[in-house]
Amino acid sequence: MSAAHAGPVSESVSHARGPVSESESHARRARRAAYLESASSIRDALGGDSGSWRVRDVADGNLNSVFLVDGPNGGVCVKQALPFVRVAGESWPLDINRAFFEASYAARVAPDVGGLAPALHHYDPDHFVIVMEKLEPHVILWKGLIAGQRFPRAPAHVAEYVAQAAFHTSDLAIPFERKFADVALFAKNVALQRITVDLVFTDPYVEVWRNKVTPPLEAWAAALRSDNALKSTVACLRLAYLNKPQSLLHGDLHSCSVMVTADDTRVIDGEFAWYGPTGFDVGNFLAHYVMAWYAQSNHPGSRDDHDAFRAAIAADIANFWLTFRRRFLEIWRDSESTGDGVPASHFADAAGRARLEAFRHSYLKAIFRDAVGFMAIKIIRRIVGFAQIADFLAIDDEARRAEAEAGALAFARSLLLQPDRFAEIESVVAALPTFEAAGLDPNKSRAPR
Amino acid sequence: MSAAHAGPVSESVSHARGPVSESESHARRARRAAYLESASSIRDALGGDSGSWRVRDVADGNLNSVFLVDGPNGGVCVKQALPFVRVAGESWPLDINRAFFEASYAARVAPDVGGLAPALHHYDPDHFVIVMEKLEPHVILWKGLIAGQRFPRAPAHVAEYVAQAAFHTSDLAIPFERKFADVALFAKNVALQRITVDLVFTDPYVEVWRNKVTPPLEAWAAALRSDNALKSTVACLRLAYLNKPQSLLHGDLHSCSVMVTADDTRVIDGEFAWYGPTGFDVGNFLAHYVMAWYAQSNHPGSRDDHDAFRAAIAADIANFWLTFRRRFLEIWRDSESTGDGVPASHFADAAGRARLEAFRHSYLKAIFRDAVGFMAIKIIRRIVGFAQIADFLAIDDEARRAEAEAGALAFARSLLLQPDRFAEIESVVAALPTFEAAGLDPNKSRAPR
Repeated sequence: MSAAHAGPVSESVSHARGPVSESESHARRARRAAYLESASSIRDALGGDSGSWRVRDVADGNLNSVFLVDGPNGGVCVKQALPFVRVAGESWPLDINRAFFEASYAARVAPDVGGLAPALHHYDPDHFVIVMEKLEPHVILWKGLIAGQRFPRAPAHVAEYVAQAAFHTSDLAIPFERKFADVALFAKNVALQRITVDLVFTDPYVEVWRNKVTPPLEAWAAALRSDNALKSTVACLRLAYLNKPQSLLHGDLHSCSVMVTADDTRVIDGEFAWYGPTGFDVGNFLAHYVMAWYAQSNHPGSRDDHDAFRAAIAADIANFWLTFRRRFLEIWRDSESTGDGVPASHFADAAGRARLEAFRHSYLKAIFRDAVGFMAIKIIRRIVGFAQIADFLAIDDEARRAEAEAGALAFARSLLLQPDRFAEIESVVAALPTFEAAGLDPNKSRAPR
Repeated sequence: MSAAHAGPVSESVSHARGPVSESESHARRARRAAYLESASSIRDALGGDSGSWRVRDVADGNLNSVFLVDGPNGGVCVKQALPFVRVAGESWPLDINRAFFEASYAARVAPDVGGLAPALHHYDPDHFVIVMEKLEPHVILWKGLIAGQRFPRAPAHVAEYVAQAAFHTSDLAIPFERKFADVALFAKNVALQRITVDLVFTDPYVEVWRNKVTPPLEAWAAALRSDNALKSTVACLRLAYLNKPQSLLHGDLHSCSVMVTADDTRVIDGEFAWYGPTGFDVGNFLAHYVMAWYAQSNHPGSRDDHDAFRAAIAADIANFWLTFRRRFLEIWRDSESTGDGVPASHFADAAGRARLEAFRHSYLKAIFRDAVGFMAIKIIRRIVGFAQIADFLAIDDEARRAEAEAGALAFARSLLLQPDRFAEIESVVAALPTFEAAGLDPNKSRAPR
């Protein structure tokens, strides 16, 4: 693999030493310029000659090298997969073919999500490189939220994205032959699914070296590990993740995979793409807003600031689901379906159409039920698992951080153990303050069963 | 495709004229002998020289050419896929690669099902030929049942087969990476899935040219076509078939895919193999026993004969499910699981093991619930769809045949509309006589909703 890995960003693997620095060699810069010049789609996007192009290293995710390149005509973003987890180094190898799956995912959903994703200029399978539209002055939604900024349009935009991608890759929209061609393709994206299966669904419920937890939360982590009813529900959700190819998932759709301005929203980073339950993407996005809600009161700022931010986040949560639901139903009603899932010929007369509308509503109810479970799973993995999130890590005071995290954990536990309480998004939003003061003793906050 | 298709059985496709007859040419026989001689596994199984080999055409299924070849050492069965549906002729083309999927399926389940399937000697991807153990004096289970013969060991044998194949190809047994390699492989078996999706799940509920129905049943067929509640349930089952890769299915597991003697049982014909809900194979097998039950009283014989046969069939139905359930649980308990579905580490202590046992039981309950639905679907498609079955067709008196079929349809409708009545196999068996006299008016027999 290492011989094949070269190209614009890294040296061959054996020489890769992380992001390219200011002191990089002239030869390396020249090789990169030659690479960028080699694709007409990149040359056209940048314009001018390569000597005038400006390159900036902006990698800040966990996995890949990312560069922005500007030329006289415009800019591009160059993303190259490395054969290991960038933040961990070569000790954590990772299948480099994720670039193929990301490019395949982007190409598959592009016709339906339109301007809600960056335009894809170029995919280079030999160097595992994707070149796409540069997004500036966009910021990562996650960072914006942590800084207390508001992006009121983002939830509805992401809801539109998920509704379009989910509907149009499902058996509601396309013949199963077309769907299963993609099921077969993304079924090979197992390296990144191993991360999800282990880090999201398995590790948080056992003692594993790579789990991290804020020390005052040890009792909470132990309570989750010993809760067999909860782990049964987790098993059902893990089986659903592996056994429900309902639609093509982004697979990592949270606020760190979304870039925003006040008006514009783009979903990026589809390398975890996978055919799975639609509720997984929905629940993942909701989970990170829920965590933003729980983290907020412990950040600097006045009480009024916090209350206003939380009210806005709660509105975002409701808005995201309600927009997703409304748009999914509208797209379904408007579609001239060629899908095999629910043949139009079976519901062709007036009574049939009324029944089909009821069927649609129950289909959305089932997505919501799945989303509630996956939301809980995603909250738990960010607090007692390997990959902590900045929302909570930004709280310097460990005791306050643990209190905020305990609230989110208590909320997540209730989602898993009492799903019937959460049949509507309004119940989810209303429950947020209920668990805020859950506290560090997991037994005290246990809701009646 | 036609140039590649030749080999032991057919001329090249453009010259295929159906099964090879006694008057086949000398050249053709010589070519076939040369073909059979070319594989050492076949030469070894037959022994002697090719001049001493005896070849018999035994094709009686719908799709393929099948020959038995005997030599001094033993016999083999040679099955060649044709690029069209054998019984329909070249006007109904069919993907010839089904031989690949059948061979892949047989190879995949062989380690687990052992002697419950014929041994596979040879697979020839160039000629779409599978050479396997010759089964003699076995008969097709279906034909035996129609003739009133008893095979009391067959249901438990098939139950063992399904339990082994289903468990060992599921997330309960194997890492998801291995499972999804097979999901990807069988996701390409879409040509035969198109038959299932159309003929089983779709056509019986709309007016389609190829549907057939015994004329007195027209009112029943129309009632099913206009029952929107029933078609909603059918939509859920169709979506489950397309969206629940729980285990590798045989995909066509009924009594015509089983060969038996009094003591020996072999499952054959896995070309419909597909990752789907385990309950699909279970329900399919049950459906054909249910139809045998409904058909029987209308065949020649004394009333006592019929009662005895029906009691035996009812016992077979219970025995099949109870054996499947018991064996699936035993295999699960005994397995040193490497599956990702329900990690052993999550249920390692005594309380965890007790919880896991409860989880196993609910898993089996869910399979049964699926099986009840698929059983109903399979009954309906055999009575108002394209492919009728010999059980009913053997009843010469059209009025009596329609009465028998109406009973089975009324039973199937109740399975779909009132699944909570059928949470246990005992309820299924007890309900059989309830619907026997349902009669030709579908509105009269409608059970309370």
